[in-house]
Amino acid sequence: MSQNSRQFHLNAFLMGVGHHEAAWRHPRTEAHRVLDVAHFQELGRIAERGKLDSVFFADGLAVGPRIKHNALAVFEPVTLLSAIAVATERIGLIATASTSYSDPYNLARKFTSLDHISRGRAGWNIVTSAGADEAANFGVDGIPAHRGRYERAEEFVDVTLALWDSWEDGAVVLDEESGIFADPDRVHTVDHAGERFRVKGPLNSPRSAQGRPLLVQAGSSESGKEFAARYAEAVFTAQRTLAEGQQFYRDLKARVVAHGRSADQLKVLPGIVPFIADTQEEAEELERSFTDLISPEYALRQLSTMLGVDLTEHALDAPLPPLPPLDEIEGNKSRYQLVKDLAANGDLTVRELIGLLGGGRGHRTFAGTPEQIADELQTWFEKGAADGFNIMPPYLPGGLDDFVDRVVPILQERGLFRTEYTTDTLRGHYGLGDPGNRFTEELAHDVSA
Amino acid sequence: MSQNSRQFHLNAFLMGVGHHEAAWRHPRTEAHRVLDVAHFQELGRIAERGKLDSVFFADGLAVGPRIKHNALAVFEPVTLLSAIAVATERIGLIATASTSYSDPYNLARKFTSLDHISRGRAGWNIVTSAGADEAANFGVDGIPAHRGRYERAEEFVDVTLALWDSWEDGAVVLDEESGIFADPDRVHTVDHAGERFRVKGPLNSPRSAQGRPLLVQAGSSESGKEFAARYAEAVFTAQRTLAEGQQFYRDLKARVVAHGRSADQLKVLPGIVPFIADTQEEAEELERSFTDLISPEYALRQLSTMLGVDLTEHALDAPLPPLPPLDEIEGNKSRYQLVKDLAANGDLTVRELIGLLGGGRGHRTFAGTPEQIADELQTWFEKGAADGFNIMPPYLPGGLDDFVDRVVPILQERGLFRTEYTTDTLRGHYGLGDPGNRFTEELAHDVSA
Repeated sequence: MSQNSRQFHLNAFLMGVGHHEAAWRHPRTEAHRVLDVAHFQELGRIAERGKLDSVFFADGLAVGPRIKHNALAVFEPVTLLSAIAVATERIGLIATASTSYSDPYNLARKFTSLDHISRGRAGWNIVTSAGADEAANFGVDGIPAHRGRYERAEEFVDVTLALWDSWEDGAVVLDEESGIFADPDRVHTVDHAGERFRVKGPLNSPRSAQGRPLLVQAGSSESGKEFAARYAEAVFTAQRTLAEGQQFYRDLKARVVAHGRSADQLKVLPGIVPFIADTQEEAEELERSFTDLISPEYALRQLSTMLGVDLTEHALDAPLPPLPPLDEIEGNKSRYQLVKDLAANGDLTVRELIGLLGGGRGHRTFAGTPEQIADELQTWFEKGAADGFNIMPPYLPGGLDDFVDRVVPILQERGLFRTEYTTDTLRGHYGLGDPGNRFTEELAHDVSA
Repeated sequence: MSQNSRQFHLNAFLMGVGHHEAAWRHPRTEAHRVLDVAHFQELGRIAERGKLDSVFFADGLAVGPRIKHNALAVFEPVTLLSAIAVATERIGLIATASTSYSDPYNLARKFTSLDHISRGRAGWNIVTSAGADEAANFGVDGIPAHRGRYERAEEFVDVTLALWDSWEDGAVVLDEESGIFADPDRVHTVDHAGERFRVKGPLNSPRSAQGRPLLVQAGSSESGKEFAARYAEAVFTAQRTLAEGQQFYRDLKARVVAHGRSADQLKVLPGIVPFIADTQEEAEELERSFTDLISPEYALRQLSTMLGVDLTEHALDAPLPPLPPLDEIEGNKSRYQLVKDLAANGDLTVRELIGLLGGGRGHRTFAGTPEQIADELQTWFEKGAADGFNIMPPYLPGGLDDFVDRVVPILQERGLFRTEYTTDTLRGHYGLGDPGNRFTEELAHDVSA
């Protein structure tokens, strides 16, 4: 067994019975499991068997156009991860939550609670909720402006980080003799008074085993990348080719450094949807068996949402109509750009485009043998396109089983991935140290002055 | 074994390592368990062993004056109950959440998620958050007015109930053959546009096994009782004497009927803090051993918060100073009234009052043998003061163990309490049927028209 000096990170991005649009209709899945918490606990245990860094559940605050063909979000992810936390020991637990439709105090509390329940394994994927359907559930008309969403997100995260610092390590004294439960000198108000939020603090929960939850982000717009460079510790990203992946990686790392952070404080994790089989031919056949089950009606709605253009009445075998310019898109700009690039390259019909997108909603699909998948990951890692990968099994639990049991051992054999956990926390798995505490540091300053 | 025609209900109100202020300092507890999710899972299993209807966790959105002597809320209760849900099978799971500092969509979603995780065992204790310390964490200055809080709560609950109806039973079709996941004709927008909220819907989660979570309430002000009469299905209440309990029970049931509901659609559950021992003398000695550990500094702060009067510099052995009139109190009016009554009856010093209040924060403390406690509960039930009880163990897990293993068998022997669960849902345990669905009823109307 060789031992590389550097190893990469693996997150399992889990969704219902699989990432593929039609996963729930495929014979390799049992559709009713989308409603069964035991299914999701099993997924957490499988990921932990593979020594993965973390599992991740995305979220949205509306049903959207998915009702008829796919209900993706039965469970709210933090409550779901709480149930997974107590069925596992080491795997990290990352959930999406929106800065546009919640309050810093509630969000900080919810994630700290998960962090206590899991003993330091919680992570927050920060989203700003672009959808008009989400806005309509919170009294907001139309699509909230991109810029305003990110400004709010920045102040939101600043407050949240302050609340997470409000209890220093060791503030919980538990001295039964003197009757002192907590040391009030180590519990701080945050007294935030900004443009959008006024929050006094302290948080009503002590600091967790990993200090605070890991910050994750996935936006790829200009504001998204700047936001990530400033705050994120891991970034999920959709890159289709090695060259694009390298370009994104260089760009983001340079921005991290420009923000005064060390480049390795942010881990870049491109997504991949792996179809795994004994031969490449069988893997491609497996992928086709999923594509054949995509509902065109559903796919047209998905595509319309991605592009902000109504295609639901569009002929399937006609080419994609002209798209509006990027700067008119208020939603997910990176998904939009991806579809535009794909369509421009291939002169594709809508049906062909749907097939390309169906597996991973814009993420890279890869069909191959375990060795081919391992080669691909190794290449991206060694050629500077990734610090690790966001594994998006097209069907569950089988697709995760196969990745863990067939691909991970090859990566371990090559020294590219851990064979045992070496830490107990999510921040530890990602090689991130103690996040520090503004209040503890101030105290240290006072002492040295 | 005799068999009464009517049986009562039992909820275990759980808090850290016990309800008593000084529980964490007592040799019968281990203080560090307040941070341990396994402790709370064990409490859920003990309550389930006793066939109790439910466990309940209160919550507040600020640390308040408790930091130094007691940190009560390490865990956010819904994430905590999610962890308990997967460690139990039948016990109901009730959590406090505030209508003042959350959105209906988020709250409806969170409780539905718990309801799915527990397969129909979730309940929501509706609070309106009276504290100025809570307000300051959400950009609100001062103590929010009583009236405004309840007006918001009404609209909030109306929207939440509509969202919970937005998916009809059977809306999830899961037809793999046709590719139909959900029937869009059975998933409805709610299109609420009120004074405080605009919410389009539908909720992004299907209807749960019990239809929707149980609604619980605990306010005892005029607005609180009216609110309960209109919405609540169970009410936690602090009544110190049988006569007061009977009066409250009659009053509330009359209000329920005045709102067009059947009296048994709301269960009245007075609180009791039981100190259990082999003899009454030993039980009283046990209670004293807890009272002796109360920190006067902490108790004065608690009392000041209850009364809205700063007593922190008040001499312990002096009588209580004159209190402001009830209508100037914006906070918890029932607690205020209780303290005022106690002080008026007894010409008590502050120290004596603290001892009386220390066990249950205003709830009735009862020290006795298992038989005496069973007698007391039976009397209240048979004399029309209760449909069941809110059991508040002064120390945990021992105080819950003793209630379940020593008092419950006596109640079962007398036919007053179930010997086995007869339903799988929280609503079922409380004898409440299917809550109905406005959309399904409309459909039924259409068909019969």
